[in-house]
Amino acid sequence: MAVAMTTPRFQVTYRITPDDARPVEAHARDICIEETVEIPEDCIPEGHWKAGIIGNVESITERPGNPPAYDCVISYRTDITNNEIPNLLNVLFGNISIRRGIKITAIQFSAEQLAAFGGPRIGIEGIRKALNVHGRPLATTAIKPLGLSAKELAVMCGGYAAGGLDAIKDDHGLIDQHFHPFEERVSRIQEAITTANVRTGKATHYYPMVAGRFDQVERQVAFAKAQGCFGVLVAPFLIGPDTGFHLARKYGLAVMTHPTFSGTHFHDPRHGMTPAILLGTLFRLFGADISVFPNAGGRFTFSLAECQDLAHACRDPFGSLRGTFPSPAGGMTIEKVGAMLETFGNDTALLIGGALLRHSPDPEVSARAFVTALEKAVKERKP
Amino acid sequence: MAVAMTTPRFQVTYRITPDDARPVEAHARDICIEETVEIPEDCIPEGHWKAGIIGNVESITERPGNPPAYDCVISYRTDITNNEIPNLLNVLFGNISIRRGIKITAIQFSAEQLAAFGGPRIGIEGIRKALNVHGRPLATTAIKPLGLSAKELAVMCGGYAAGGLDAIKDDHGLIDQHFHPFEERVSRIQEAITTANVRTGKATHYYPMVAGRFDQVERQVAFAKAQGCFGVLVAPFLIGPDTGFHLARKYGLAVMTHPTFSGTHFHDPRHGMTPAILLGTLFRLFGADISVFPNAGGRFTFSLAECQDLAHACRDPFGSLRGTFPSPAGGMTIEKVGAMLETFGNDTALLIGGALLRHSPDPEVSARAFVTALEKAVKERKP
Repeated sequence: MAVAMTTPRFQVTYRITPDDARPVEAHARDICIEETVEIPEDCIPEGHWKAGIIGNVESITERPGNPPAYDCVISYRTDITNNEIPNLLNVLFGNISIRRGIKITAIQFSAEQLAAFGGPRIGIEGIRKALNVHGRPLATTAIKPLGLSAKELAVMCGGYAAGGLDAIKDDHGLIDQHFHPFEERVSRIQEAITTANVRTGKATHYYPMVAGRFDQVERQVAFAKAQGCFGVLVAPFLIGPDTGFHLARKYGLAVMTHPTFSGTHFHDPRHGMTPAILLGTLFRLFGADISVFPNAGGRFTFSLAECQDLAHACRDPFGSLRGTFPSPAGGMTIEKVGAMLETFGNDTALLIGGALLRHSPDPEVSARAFVTALEKAVKERKP
Repeated sequence: MAVAMTTPRFQVTYRITPDDARPVEAHARDICIEETVEIPEDCIPEGHWKAGIIGNVESITERPGNPPAYDCVISYRTDITNNEIPNLLNVLFGNISIRRGIKITAIQFSAEQLAAFGGPRIGIEGIRKALNVHGRPLATTAIKPLGLSAKELAVMCGGYAAGGLDAIKDDHGLIDQHFHPFEERVSRIQEAITTANVRTGKATHYYPMVAGRFDQVERQVAFAKAQGCFGVLVAPFLIGPDTGFHLARKYGLAVMTHPTFSGTHFHDPRHGMTPAILLGTLFRLFGADISVFPNAGGRFTFSLAECQDLAHACRDPFGSLRGTFPSPAGGMTIEKVGAMLETFGNDTALLIGGALLRHSPDPEVSARAFVTALEKAVKERKP
């Protein structure tokens, strides 16, 4: 059936690992229907085929290896996604998320889509400019643990800022618990960081975690803005894929994304989305300025290749979109700074959390050790 | 280390399938720390242990089978979840979603948590009362396909209502596309259903899909309410786990949940949450009056046992919470009505979508055939 190609389309590469004996073509066809009209093939109105409303299989390429797997490129009309995040995700990987053997490994967006979603509003260059930090990765941390008082967390942040860190984020488990209520925490911490910045002449940024209920989350973002925060920490799977990006844009704040509760996409090469697609391509498209991810060699399960692919998705040319800082984290240490620099290069936001607590009881000492190690590694790397 | 049990706690059963040679106790300990304080064990303040802020391993039971797997019950302080949906999900399965070999198979909530989240506001009995339908499953459908005009969809719905269906939902892919803009679609469809209801004396309900951006979704819910819709169709993974439940409660609407984009939880017995936990226990706790899921024997991959467990989670005693209608769907047909009744019993919302389109070009005829088959199956089942 000839498909009308007059209406703009975009392309998704699904790696299909058939879980039954049917030919791969049948599996690809299932995706085309399931993600659009979702009715039996013989009930699809003739006009729908002609108008290209059903997904269209553009190519199928067998991959080497066993079990047999295939890269299937399927195109969709862009207008069925309405250029909105919930709708786009539903077309990309809605009901088919509940079928086995389908992994998204690449997406080719149209220029119109890139313009509509817009990508990072600040991006790598904007953050570097605001920090006045060039020629090296950023040194960032997460403040922990849950259950300290807001005062204690603020003292810790003041020390980290004094020690020269570029950005400090809340641990993503710090939400609005009574130990450290959101507003008290954010105002005390931003104040402590601002005080340190005045002293050092630097511009350490703070990203508080915003993860309130639907009726709380905008107030939290507005509050962060009013306190002078540079950005917010957003977990799209906790508050909704659109919510945090939308609010950060509305209030002119940078977005640092966190992958919590998204991990079932990544365990199996046959199911879900790759880390590069979900935490790289999509989060960048939606507006992440920094994308935190669990680095290889830490407490989590991403491979080195997956992490590097993710970093590429954050920084490689992507239409006219700004770049996103990849932020490897999750069990990183000061000793690993050199290796991380080798792996990810300069345009990276290195995140060391718990290991700074362990390095010294004085956060300023820990921060300085981190920044010093980083500057040393950059210097030694250059010829 | 003795844990203070004076602060209320709740219990989560994680099925752990160790992915390395460490003993299961080490894996369980990892979860306790990762989901709470998220710092190296030797950095945890003494007072945190005493206060029970870290997760506590209550029991570990080996499961029969190979590879070795263990049911580990871990308790958490309820106050670290703040009784809010984003925060609860983050404690249950936040960062550990990115670790392999962890599946949530049971959760024991405290009475305080059940009261705080509240469960369905209408529930099985409330929906039956509003419909005046007793002693048989509900007959429901989804209107499709994406790409018809709002007028065509409204004619279809008028027919389905005239034919006696109890509830009609939008296909979850009908969002706000130009083919059928949200407001035009909802007003035309509700009008067609109301007109049919006046004629039949029945009370067919309509659940429009609400999946707009953060700044659109409340307006959509309010519009559905103003048009007289009984409920809304909500996909928690598209708009955020809290969003739809919160708004439906605010506007006094029933909630039908849809599992789109959640499916990576279900592919592997080693990772994610079971369908019963995510689409049953949690969606019910959060307020689902009807939970749609892909039935065994259709286009998707749930086993019969998984579907029955899910139905139990929807309806079994759960503190004082109301029951949720389990709604098996995804490739169901009129011919399967008897078998579905046997499998799921009366308190079920049977959902037949595409097969009604195929049954007859006249939706009224299809709907009547569905309801007739259902009534016949119920009659024949009774002695």
